[in-house]
Amino acid sequence: MWRDLRPIGRHADSGGYRRFAWTGADADCRAWFRTQAESRGLRYELDRNGNQWAWLGDPAEGDAVVTGSHLDSVPDGGAFDGPLGVVSSFAALDELRGRQARFTRPLAVVNFGDEEGARFGLACVGSRLAAGQLTVEQAHRLTDADGVTLPQAMERAGYDPDTIGPDPERLSRIGAFVELHVEQGRALDLSGDRVGIASAIWPHGRWRFDFRGEANHAGTTRLVDRRDPMLPYAETVLAARREALITGAVATFGKISVEPNGVNAIPSLVRGWLDSRAADQPTLDTVVTGIEKAAREYAQAQGVELDVVRESFTPVVEFEHALRDELARILTTTADLTVPVLGTGAGHDAGILSGTVPTAMLFVRNPTGVSHSPAEYAAEDDCVAGVTALADVLEGLACR
Amino acid sequence: MWRDLRPIGRHADSGGYRRFAWTGADADCRAWFRTQAESRGLRYELDRNGNQWAWLGDPAEGDAVVTGSHLDSVPDGGAFDGPLGVVSSFAALDELRGRQARFTRPLAVVNFGDEEGARFGLACVGSRLAAGQLTVEQAHRLTDADGVTLPQAMERAGYDPDTIGPDPERLSRIGAFVELHVEQGRALDLSGDRVGIASAIWPHGRWRFDFRGEANHAGTTRLVDRRDPMLPYAETVLAARREALITGAVATFGKISVEPNGVNAIPSLVRGWLDSRAADQPTLDTVVTGIEKAAREYAQAQGVELDVVRESFTPVVEFEHALRDELARILTTTADLTVPVLGTGAGHDAGILSGTVPTAMLFVRNPTGVSHSPAEYAAEDDCVAGVTALADVLEGLACR
Repeated sequence: MWRDLRPIGRHADSGGYRRFAWTGADADCRAWFRTQAESRGLRYELDRNGNQWAWLGDPAEGDAVVTGSHLDSVPDGGAFDGPLGVVSSFAALDELRGRQARFTRPLAVVNFGDEEGARFGLACVGSRLAAGQLTVEQAHRLTDADGVTLPQAMERAGYDPDTIGPDPERLSRIGAFVELHVEQGRALDLSGDRVGIASAIWPHGRWRFDFRGEANHAGTTRLVDRRDPMLPYAETVLAARREALITGAVATFGKISVEPNGVNAIPSLVRGWLDSRAADQPTLDTVVTGIEKAAREYAQAQGVELDVVRESFTPVVEFEHALRDELARILTTTADLTVPVLGTGAGHDAGILSGTVPTAMLFVRNPTGVSHSPAEYAAEDDCVAGVTALADVLEGLACR
Repeated sequence: MWRDLRPIGRHADSGGYRRFAWTGADADCRAWFRTQAESRGLRYELDRNGNQWAWLGDPAEGDAVVTGSHLDSVPDGGAFDGPLGVVSSFAALDELRGRQARFTRPLAVVNFGDEEGARFGLACVGSRLAAGQLTVEQAHRLTDADGVTLPQAMERAGYDPDTIGPDPERLSRIGAFVELHVEQGRALDLSGDRVGIASAIWPHGRWRFDFRGEANHAGTTRLVDRRDPMLPYAETVLAARREALITGAVATFGKISVEPNGVNAIPSLVRGWLDSRAADQPTLDTVVTGIEKAAREYAQAQGVELDVVRESFTPVVEFEHALRDELARILTTTADLTVPVLGTGAGHDAGILSGTVPTAMLFVRNPTGVSHSPAEYAAEDDCVAGVTALADVLEGLACR
C-alpha cells in the first residue's frame, strides 16, 4: 500500500508532500483509497462533503465501528501525518481477516477530506461540514491564495459542491470512531512505549496580527521619522516565546506576509499569524492576552497601528471516557501492552467528531517528535505495533 | 506631461506604482518618453542597453550636457521617484526654448532602464551595463521571481537582448550629466530650501540572512525540542535597529521569505534581507559586522544555522567637485538661491555614471521625506523651482 501512495504529491526539491485539497495530488490519493477499498471487496462510498468511506457490512444496521484518518498534507509535510491512519486501517482489516474475525457490527474505513486546511486556511473541512460545525455559507466563503473558492475547487476536481452540508444521518450510524495517528510530539519516545491513547486535544486558535506602519525608503528615511512595523512584529515574536515558556503552553509565529516586501523599502504592513495552544482554556487566554498586550505596547512605541483578529478557535476536546477506557482495557488485557494516555496540541477529525460520536485516538511513537516536515518519521516496528493495536481494538469493539 | 504618465502602472488598491522593467507598464512609460521626444523635434534613440535618449544637436560633436532620470518604480512606489527628473528635463528644455537659449553644446534627455531593480533584484541595470559595471554574463544570470531571465524579459518586450554590454563610445560623448530627483529625506524641509545639490551617495549594500532551523508541528513540538529560525530572525531585526541608532547609520529588514510559511508549522527557513547604509565605509562595516555577530549568537542559542550572503555593494560616491561647484555658482548667482549641499543614502544612475562621466545631482524638497510609497509627494511650487533650477544649470553649462 505504501509503495503506491509514496510518490503522490511529493515535491522533488524538499522531499516533502504537497497534497492540498481538490488538487491533482489529492485526486490521486482519492483514487488510491478507492482502489484499496474495492480490491478488498469493501463497498466504496463518497459522501456529500467529499469524505470517502469503505464499508464492510451494512451501515444501515447502525452502531458501526469506523476507523481512518486523512490523506491530505500541509505544505512540505511528512509521509505519516494522516496516511498512517488510513493505511493502518486497511492493514488492520487484513489482519482481522487473517484472524478470521467475525464481525457483529458494521465496520468502515474513512478518509476525511481537507483535514490540514493547507489550501483554504481552515482545518478539518470534511468532518466539520458533516458535523455541522461549518455552515454551507461559511464554506462558500473559503478561498485559496489564488482566489479560487472551495465550491469552484470542488467543481474543477469533478465533485458537486451543491451537496455539501450537515450529514447527521450518516454520523448517527456510527457507534464508535477510532483514529490512529503518528504522534506529533515525543511523549511516547520519552516513556518508551510504541502506542498510546489520547486523553484530550488542547484548546487552540489562530490569531492574525496586522502591524500597519508607513512604507518609506530604507536608505534615506531617518530612524526618528520611521514607522517600521517590522520592529514591533519582531518584539511580538519574542514576547510569544516568553509567554509560552512562562505558562507551559506553545505559541508560534510561523507565517508572515509583508508589503511591499522590497529590500530597500520600509514595510507598510507586516502581517504575522500566531498559533497558540495550551492544556486548558484559562492558560491559553493568559498566553494570548499577554502577547497581545505586549504587541500593543511595542506597536504604539513605534507609531504603528495594530489589529488582532482571531481567525479560528477550537475549545478543549475531552475524548469520551467510556470508549477511552474500553480501548485501554482491550490493549492491556489482549495485547499485554502498557498504553500511556496522552494529551495533544494537534487538532484532528476525531476532535471534530467527538461532539457528535463516541471517539477515541491511538498514537504511534515518533522517535524525533518531528511532524509537518519531510523529516517526520515512525519506525517500521512501531507502525506494525500500531496496526496490531488497531486490529485488537477493532476486534474488541466489533466482534464482541 | 504628468497627465499622460499618471495612470501608467498605477495599482488600484494601493494607489502606488508598479512599473517594473520590461513589463507592460514599462512599455507604456517608454512610449510616453518617445512621444515627448518626438513632439519636441528631438532625435529619439534607443541604446544597446535599453536606455532611451532624446537629442538636441549632434551627439557626435561630443562634450554633451545630458539630464534625465528613470521612469520605473519600486513595488507600490510613488509618482515622483524617477519621473520627476524626466518630466523636469523636458520642462526645462521647454523653458530654455522660451528663453530663446542658444546652445553651444549638444544636449540630451535620458531615461535609464531598470533603475530600481524591483524585478531582477539589482538596481541601475541600464546604467551599470553602459558603464561596464555589470558584465553581460552577470546580466544573463539575473532572474525575476517567476524564473524569467533578463534576456527573456527583454525579448518578450520586443527588445534584442544580444546587444547589451558596455557602451564607452556613447558615454565618452557626455561632458556632464545632471540628474534631478525628488529628495528622499527631509533635509531640505528642515533647512527650508526648495532645491539642493548632492555631495555624495552613502556606501550601501544588501545582505541576505538565511536562518535554517527545523520544520515541525506548531501545536505539538515542545519548546525545548524546537529549532525555530523565526526567533533569531526577530532578535536580529532588533539588533539592526540598535546598531543603526548607535552609529547614525540606517539598517532595515524590509523583505522576508519564510518556508513553509504555514500557520501551524514552525519554519524550516527564514530568509531576511538587510539593507544598510552609512555616511562612510568604516561606519557601515561596523554596523553590518555588529548585526552579523548578534545574529550568529542568537542563531546558535536556538540551534539554528545562519548563512550571511552579501548580495550587492556600492562604495561611497563623491560627486565631482568641479561640476558640483559650477552648479552651486550658477544657482547662487543666476537664480539668487541658497542651495544646500547634501549627502544621500539612496543609489542613483548618477552614482553609477560618476565613475565615467562628470556627474551632479539636484534634489527637490520632499515635505514629509516619504519615498518608495504611494504617499511620496513634492509641492507644485517646489517642482516648478526644480525645473527653473535645472533650466538655469543647463543654460549655464550648455550656452556658455
